[in-house]
Amino acid sequence: MSTVTVTLPDGATLDVESGATVEDVAYEIGPGLGRDTVAGKLDGELVAKEEPITEDREIEIVTEDSDDYLDVLRHTAAHVLAQAVLRHHPDAKLTIGPYTDEGFYYDIADVELDADDLEEIQAEAEDIIEADYDVERVEYDREEAVEKYEDNPFKREILDTEAAGEDPVSFYRQDGFEDLCQGPHVDSTGEIGGFEVLETSAAYWRGDEDRETLTRVYGTAFPTEDGLEEYLQRREEAKERDHRKLGSEMDLFSIPDVTGPGLPLYHPNGKTVLRELSDYVHELNRDMGYDEVETPHLFRTELWKQSGHYDNYVDDMFLMDVDDEEYGLKPMNCPGHATIFDQSSWSYRDLPVRYFEDGKVYRREQRGELSGLSRVWAFTIDDGHVFARADQIEEEVRRIMDLIFEVLDTFDLDYEVALATRPEKSVGSDEIWEQSESQLRDVLDQQNVDYDLEPGDGAFYGPKVDFAFEDALGRTWDGPTVQLDFNMPDRFDLEYTGSDNEAHQPVMIHRALYGSYERFFMVLIEHYNGRFPTWLAPEQVRILPVTDDNLGYAHRVKNELEGYRVEVEDRDWTVGRKIQQAHDDNVPYMLVLGDDEEEAGTVSVRDRQERERNDVDLDAFLDHLDSEVEQKRTEPDFVDE
Amino acid sequence: MSTVTVTLPDGATLDVESGATVEDVAYEIGPGLGRDTVAGKLDGELVAKEEPITEDREIEIVTEDSDDYLDVLRHTAAHVLAQAVLRHHPDAKLTIGPYTDEGFYYDIADVELDADDLEEIQAEAEDIIEADYDVERVEYDREEAVEKYEDNPFKREILDTEAAGEDPVSFYRQDGFEDLCQGPHVDSTGEIGGFEVLETSAAYWRGDEDRETLTRVYGTAFPTEDGLEEYLQRREEAKERDHRKLGSEMDLFSIPDVTGPGLPLYHPNGKTVLRELSDYVHELNRDMGYDEVETPHLFRTELWKQSGHYDNYVDDMFLMDVDDEEYGLKPMNCPGHATIFDQSSWSYRDLPVRYFEDGKVYRREQRGELSGLSRVWAFTIDDGHVFARADQIEEEVRRIMDLIFEVLDTFDLDYEVALATRPEKSVGSDEIWEQSESQLRDVLDQQNVDYDLEPGDGAFYGPKVDFAFEDALGRTWDGPTVQLDFNMPDRFDLEYTGSDNEAHQPVMIHRALYGSYERFFMVLIEHYNGRFPTWLAPEQVRILPVTDDNLGYAHRVKNELEGYRVEVEDRDWTVGRKIQQAHDDNVPYMLVLGDDEEEAGTVSVRDRQERERNDVDLDAFLDHLDSEVEQKRTEPDFVDE
Repeated sequence: MSTVTVTLPDGATLDVESGATVEDVAYEIGPGLGRDTVAGKLDGELVAKEEPITEDREIEIVTEDSDDYLDVLRHTAAHVLAQAVLRHHPDAKLTIGPYTDEGFYYDIADVELDADDLEEIQAEAEDIIEADYDVERVEYDREEAVEKYEDNPFKREILDTEAAGEDPVSFYRQDGFEDLCQGPHVDSTGEIGGFEVLETSAAYWRGDEDRETLTRVYGTAFPTEDGLEEYLQRREEAKERDHRKLGSEMDLFSIPDVTGPGLPLYHPNGKTVLRELSDYVHELNRDMGYDEVETPHLFRTELWKQSGHYDNYVDDMFLMDVDDEEYGLKPMNCPGHATIFDQSSWSYRDLPVRYFEDGKVYRREQRGELSGLSRVWAFTIDDGHVFARADQIEEEVRRIMDLIFEVLDTFDLDYEVALATRPEKSVGSDEIWEQSESQLRDVLDQQNVDYDLEPGDGAFYGPKVDFAFEDALGRTWDGPTVQLDFNMPDRFDLEYTGSDNEAHQPVMIHRALYGSYERFFMVLIEHYNGRFPTWLAPEQVRILPVTDDNLGYAHRVKNELEGYRVEVEDRDWTVGRKIQQAHDDNVPYMLVLGDDEEEAGTVSVRDRQERERNDVDLDAFLDHLDSEVEQKRTEPDFVDE
Repeated sequence: MSTVTVTLPDGATLDVESGATVEDVAYEIGPGLGRDTVAGKLDGELVAKEEPITEDREIEIVTEDSDDYLDVLRHTAAHVLAQAVLRHHPDAKLTIGPYTDEGFYYDIADVELDADDLEEIQAEAEDIIEADYDVERVEYDREEAVEKYEDNPFKREILDTEAAGEDPVSFYRQDGFEDLCQGPHVDSTGEIGGFEVLETSAAYWRGDEDRETLTRVYGTAFPTEDGLEEYLQRREEAKERDHRKLGSEMDLFSIPDVTGPGLPLYHPNGKTVLRELSDYVHELNRDMGYDEVETPHLFRTELWKQSGHYDNYVDDMFLMDVDDEEYGLKPMNCPGHATIFDQSSWSYRDLPVRYFEDGKVYRREQRGELSGLSRVWAFTIDDGHVFARADQIEEEVRRIMDLIFEVLDTFDLDYEVALATRPEKSVGSDEIWEQSESQLRDVLDQQNVDYDLEPGDGAFYGPKVDFAFEDALGRTWDGPTVQLDFNMPDRFDLEYTGSDNEAHQPVMIHRALYGSYERFFMVLIEHYNGRFPTWLAPEQVRILPVTDDNLGYAHRVKNELEGYRVEVEDRDWTVGRKIQQAHDDNVPYMLVLGDDEEEAGTVSVRDRQERERNDVDLDAFLDHLDSEVEQKRTEPDFVDE
């Protein structure tokens, strides 16, 4: 018999017989590990422990202690859910039921579920878990498998597509319930410590609007009850912080039906925050030598053909016919910037040339995918492009990283960094790839950035560094990015004259500090739970006259605060109610002005953390406000504890 | 016989026999006026002196001294041109030949004209003028007229459309050349003192792309040779100042073919000016209590149907189909602002509510009409809308006027003002029209504004005050506007709760300070001839080191000027050439730094008017720069004479 070599995570290798399973390898390493094996990973892909190994592979054994264990457990939980549904709705037809970052879902045809049904299903699932049924892998001849799904065209379609080559076909079984499945799964339903059916929504079979509408049931599962409780609590909090809820309560934006889906209107409060965000990156960009440009939103599709976006993005583009010619709303800002660069002739001494623009882009997401500001049809990128010589890449990337770190720091956002390198299919010479990848690595190393290397995950046009930021709720979001591009300069025939007097092609660097303003705004609303730092707050100070007699003084104080966003609360309310309302409105500072203050020419300062300092000189408060806003501090801190 | 009453410009009235001509009335007034009569105006419309008066009319007699005389003269010049063309190209077919603000043109079919042809035509026209032929009005039966144009389908079409009711039909004749024409004309070709064929372009019959292509010959004419010379000189200067020429020379913007017509790209230099312009009005708006909002560029056409724009603008809109629904790029910003207003409930105490936005709008101009920044497909309006109670209109309009005057003053632009009042077809009660028109008049009177009253020229939705500004070349352009609107609030069901606790409809005020940024930018480029005031200049200061030895000092001085747009000229040139280049580039200030300056730690300041002051303390220059820019002064004035 032939042998194959498996490589363990620590780099050690092991020769095993070809056809040995993941579990066999685990036992080979040690009987304890063998007993604990839940599943495995081969070349990074999650597989059942029964998976045979027939060629050299990298292997990882998944046990209860592995990060991947949760995915396996949730996969089993999806089967538990499916079984529970079928017990009550025997005519329902299962389709697919994957795990997700937050739990799992199952898409089911021919069933309608209301709140009562979900309660019933929850109870049924708890029974199945309580019973602690064994979860076994079983295999059937293809013919047998097709017969089992005589009444289920969806599973038959899967047998004909994803599982087309398999015979026998693997199923997983618990308590007589069987489901076509590659696995892996945990050993028994009892391993699920906490299980919760969350909600339902509509979904399309294969995600295709033209195909059957299905009922998607969302759930989540954890190894322990405590894990579930913690998750549910965080979920509740996230709901409270939902930017759509806060966006409406704080009058930040709206997406009314008459204007169109995914096309938000920014109200004064929301636009104030966006304007501050924009002013901030504009300042950073200007200081770093970027020149602002402006490109139209509409272009001949000729341009998108030249840039290659037409080939790849046409289905997501908004197209229209004008005088028998096709035009498209821009899905990207880069071709516009490349065109501006192309209007002048450049010497090597002029480079790097840096353009930036708050550039609106348009992408036709499926209507069902649109949600608040997180998925929209039109969003604005704080988009920058650098045209550089190859020898300038390292310095430019370093400067961009500095900008990104400054932004992340300003907003108290944690982050993860990934360096994605050359994929199999790519354009550009070996030399430029090696040089630029090593430049990117050098920058990351020199700046002591902890990053994940993602070999082969770069774009076909160049390597990139992606940042994901983590908000106050522990969720991660796509954020800033730095991408090298060896392709676009070629497609647009961009060039500069080198010191050798010959024409050379510049490298293009795409970069964004926020990414999309819309998504960043959404993240900030939820990250701060609506309590924006003073520099961002739509209303920075609210003046609360104790009685109408103090209104005149209130307006005089307001005038002193010129340049800040200040309102005078002149409703006929008690001062207690005025304070409460200011708290509800998340206003960072309140100035309470009664007869004492008016007489002394002072103010009483309260902040939204309910801290208070009386008899304050207005100039002292103003000085503090200047520095707090200038330094973009996160919480009002005039009143320290 | 019956009599009719004519009203003279001074308000006096005269009863004349029905059927009396304009000339008869002139003779009635006085024999001198009768002899001098060239043409007349009836109810504001220019007519031949032979025009009979058969009902009560307002009349004005046009003589050589009237403003309208130039139009009449140029109309005759168009006939001279046509005759000259036909002498050399007997197969050419005349279509229409109107006068314009700048001269006249004639659209002619079946002829191609090159530069030599134009010279020939110019000489021929001069001969016709020299010969001083009488210009006579003649009349033919309709049948005869049709026969005359047996070979000219264009004139036959005019006979069937514009001239459909006439029989007999009027022609004008000079030296045997006859042309279908209502007149009026001057008495003889010799009255034309200066005549110039200017250029040709292509045009469509009836302005319709689907119809015949014609040759349009442009010319101009004046009563005197001097008038012509002066005009040609100003025209030459305007060409030099042409914003398309300067836009390219100064690297302000481009409209490359690949991106699409009428869709400009703003390069860093141009965007710098636009950004300053935008920052300036943003500041004015904020100070006046306007809140910035942001609306999408794309909306369901449902919105445009609700606003009424779909009915009136659909041919000029960019429409597209998305998921089987029609969407349109916005031709106006007002419906978006009305929608934002509509998202909240308002009390009478909240009003006026003021929104503003640098709002891009899209209008599908004919491709042949597009030109530089003056006619584009997409342009940005500094657009503001106020939602006010009827009793607030006067105060609001006053505030808006103050803003407009401040803007016009900042840019040294003269202006004309017109108040347009209720047209026959209109919406809104008598009361609101009377009240608001009188409010507008009061504001204009109180501010001592000299304005033209244009009765009946208001929009159907409300009266308006339009400003036209006059640039350094004496040309006028549509500028700021204030429009009251009683219609849109109705269409959007806008309301606020009054002090009576009932729902009331607010009035909407549309206003813009610049109008379109694109057109305003164009006007400024030409108005300043590229020599932007320091606060607007893309490059404000250029530092010229005398030799490379002074480069270090140059960069230190540049650092001191942080916050300003400063470049160091580091090319290997003589200082003389550096100075020349800075002049060519219209840079307001040059700092010349040689060994003397470096040693003394001073700078030598030159401005673009070639004035110079040596041995200057940098702080003194910087202080001056701060105040010059802060006050937005028009010319660099650190060096006084």
